[in-house]
Amino acid sequence: MPETLSSIGEFGLIDRIHRIIEQEGVRHSGVRLGIGDDAASFRPQQGYELLVTCDCIVEGRHYLSDAITPHDLGRRAMTLNISDIGAMGGCSLHALVSLGLKGETEVADIEAMYRGFLAELNPLGADIIGGNLTKAVGAMFIDITLIGEVEEGLIVRRSTAGVGDAILVTGYPGQSAAGLHLLLKEKPSRDLLNHPLVRQYNTPSHRAREGRAVGLSGLASAMIDTSDGFMGDLGHICDESGVGAVLSQGALPLSDALKSAARQLGKNSMDLFLGESDDYELILTCPPENVTSLQAAIASVSDVPVHAVGRIAKRSEGIQIELPDGTRRPMRTGGWDHFIDGGE
Amino acid sequence: MPETLSSIGEFGLIDRIHRIIEQEGVRHSGVRLGIGDDAASFRPQQGYELLVTCDCIVEGRHYLSDAITPHDLGRRAMTLNISDIGAMGGCSLHALVSLGLKGETEVADIEAMYRGFLAELNPLGADIIGGNLTKAVGAMFIDITLIGEVEEGLIVRRSTAGVGDAILVTGYPGQSAAGLHLLLKEKPSRDLLNHPLVRQYNTPSHRAREGRAVGLSGLASAMIDTSDGFMGDLGHICDESGVGAVLSQGALPLSDALKSAARQLGKNSMDLFLGESDDYELILTCPPENVTSLQAAIASVSDVPVHAVGRIAKRSEGIQIELPDGTRRPMRTGGWDHFIDGGE
Repeated sequence: MPETLSSIGEFGLIDRIHRIIEQEGVRHSGVRLGIGDDAASFRPQQGYELLVTCDCIVEGRHYLSDAITPHDLGRRAMTLNISDIGAMGGCSLHALVSLGLKGETEVADIEAMYRGFLAELNPLGADIIGGNLTKAVGAMFIDITLIGEVEEGLIVRRSTAGVGDAILVTGYPGQSAAGLHLLLKEKPSRDLLNHPLVRQYNTPSHRAREGRAVGLSGLASAMIDTSDGFMGDLGHICDESGVGAVLSQGALPLSDALKSAARQLGKNSMDLFLGESDDYELILTCPPENVTSLQAAIASVSDVPVHAVGRIAKRSEGIQIELPDGTRRPMRTGGWDHFIDGGE
Repeated sequence: MPETLSSIGEFGLIDRIHRIIEQEGVRHSGVRLGIGDDAASFRPQQGYELLVTCDCIVEGRHYLSDAITPHDLGRRAMTLNISDIGAMGGCSLHALVSLGLKGETEVADIEAMYRGFLAELNPLGADIIGGNLTKAVGAMFIDITLIGEVEEGLIVRRSTAGVGDAILVTGYPGQSAAGLHLLLKEKPSRDLLNHPLVRQYNTPSHRAREGRAVGLSGLASAMIDTSDGFMGDLGHICDESGVGAVLSQGALPLSDALKSAARQLGKNSMDLFLGESDDYELILTCPPENVTSLQAAIASVSDVPVHAVGRIAKRSEGIQIELPDGTRRPMRTGGWDHFIDGGE
């Protein structure tokens, strides 16, 4: 019979987790005290601000336990947080992992999940320094707090976009949403779980390295990650900066994979691009004269394409899309306006 | 009809919470960026280590929603974390609050809970700089990460008790357990909820100021808060420090209130003192010659009594209790050995 949380108990599980972190995780040099006391402790670097973010995912709401392996689940949960630190222009340092577990949860699955956390943290030189274990009532949950740092003055906010700035986006938003819809359409099979867009939903990439390069370049006026979908997060930039935006429909990067999945799903690819999607791409703004240099700064650390998709406008313009014939249509930040042709 | 999370939505609730924090919370001077971006940001003080702790409470497991008001629940959840920072000798700075909420949760209750968080944070000059809201599946949960600071070199760990050190404890452990048992025994009434020991269970005091005074004094060799009960946490000190302990039965501070509740409950007061109890008192160790100065350091900030209850022994002695007749009995860290008389 497989070991469960009920059979080894809380302190037994803490020992196992501790061992994985000690043996398989990197240790950041700033850490003074990791897991095992009332609080963890680390020494901040002089000249840096500290960044801190917190994201929680709940079984049955943010993931389906039969559609993702525990290792991938760990990677995914950590990626959300790493993305947030990267979207400020910072580096990830230390994570705290708070888990709500069920008694019947298998110990091997929790160990695999921690290896997933480390698979994302180790390449960044970041570590797990604390957390909490509790028994959940109902569904399991994973709540991660991630601490990062950024040089004073280099932080990139979402609230500082300026009228006339170019709007850029990394990668191909919407692919994760397409993967989710593929998953929801049929019972998960091995083939389906290996579909590139399903992989992208289950283990999205973060753009933390790219975000860091943007921060160091000092060339961007605003940045956000697309955790609420392209329109949702462009809306956050506009709301917080007090501006509007005009997108060029023809410039939006709709990937072939997205278009093909949209056809298979009977959906509009533009809907998938603009709507809710857990892609963790970056939306950036910068003065038009910085576009080429900013693209080059990102290209120096990453192969991910960076497309210019529009420009920041006055608040009174709201968010509009310019169609290939030059006409403009208003958009709602809640999502894509369905009466506009999908551009396929 | 009262407003619920379902009726005002996630972003509506975030606005309400934001307003309470802005209008009713203090703002720590180190904060650069609070709620509203991908991550919060603050500037650490030079010469300090940062402390970070995380505690989660789940409805139905750590609290009963019909036996505690939302305001008290907020205070209680924050107290656990403040206690952990204090038990390292540090000061609380910034909290992140991650909530798992049900759609039918009333907005007024969540607002009251935030006022409870602030009731604990404001007197310390600490603030809420971030968090997360998600819909829970099953029970509601409150997961708080609290960041603190302590001067380099002044941190007080649990793993550094030395053989021969005195063991001290603040206040009257066990009172919270008695309060819980009173609550579990009968249906909560207004009278019962106002019982001092029930109040102590629902809104325990932390000893963060006392812990901070201990840290600043440099006189203690080890410190821990009693979140796992007196024996549980003395056991943590012994395990982590590689030592044993001898307690003097006659010196253990069993309060009159505890003895009276124990009689009412038909329980042994020593069981309640030694066993699991959410008191958030401090257990300290120090060289015998420091006892008086350490008590004075605590007395300079607090009226809470500090009793010397035993001494640290060699690991091979385990944890023992010395009875009034001079004989010794072994203890198990899991709890009090029931065949020993309760000392009443």
